Amino acid sequence: MTPTAINLEAKFASFGDHWSPRVIAELNDYQFKLVKAEGEFVWHSHADTDEAFIVIEGTLEIEFRDRTVTLNAGEMIVVPRGVEHRPIAREECKIMLLEPRGVVNTGDAGGGLTAENDVWI
Amino acid sequence: MTPTAINLEAKFASFGDHWSPRVIAELNDYQFKLVKAEGEFVWHSHADTDEAFIVIEGTLEIEFRDRTVTLNAGEMIVVPRGVEHRPIAREECKIMLLEPRGVVNTGDAGGGLTAENDVWI
Repeated sequence: MTPTAINLEAKFASFGDHWSPRVIAELNDYQFKLVKAEGEFVWHSHADTDEAFIVIEGTLEIEFRDRTVTLNAGEMIVVPRGVEHRPIAREECKIMLLEPRGVVNTGDAGGGLTAENDVWI
Repeated sequence: MTPTAINLEAKFASFGDHWSPRVIAELNDYQFKLVKAEGEFVWHSHADTDEAFIVIEGTLEIEFRDRTVTLNAGEMIVVPRGVEHRPIAREECKIMLLEPRGVVNTGDAGGGLTAENDVWI
């Protein structure tokens, strides 16, 4: 079936809560997810998969145990599997994630910021 | 190992040729590739994998057998496996691809626009 264009700005406009990934597309068994980030997330890691962060708007800091990486719009990073990280957004930031279907946002950490999985917009 | 930020604009500035994907990051066995597109590509499909196009700057048209989809900056599409498509850029356009490692740009079609694979920048 012929696919259609996905407009990131329109998709971001359709939700408002923070740290709650929305799925916008699947590629094989991988998912593209949009997240609005604000404040401090939890330290966590994903034992079984790498995870890509692409900053669409704003600035995202990702703390690692040895240093902090700052990502502005138009920048991305791939966090390797098993590497502990903590995303922080001083102001609201719009990011796109790419990871296998089924990955939970808080990884091994769990807790109150754990979001419902596989929520499509 | 702690990863570093990847700046898309800086990566795009490091090469000039068209339809020749450069790998900028790997996520598990998938690769993020940057392409500068200009002119008409060839009709082709990829039998074994979906393929994502994310337009970073400019406008990309993708012809399908039944219609044409126009993608502007900030828009993306996932072309399902086996679906014939032909990218066209009326003016130079900067795009990011996401697909499994090893995918050849011209898929089943081959020909003169087939680019060397797995070229990193």
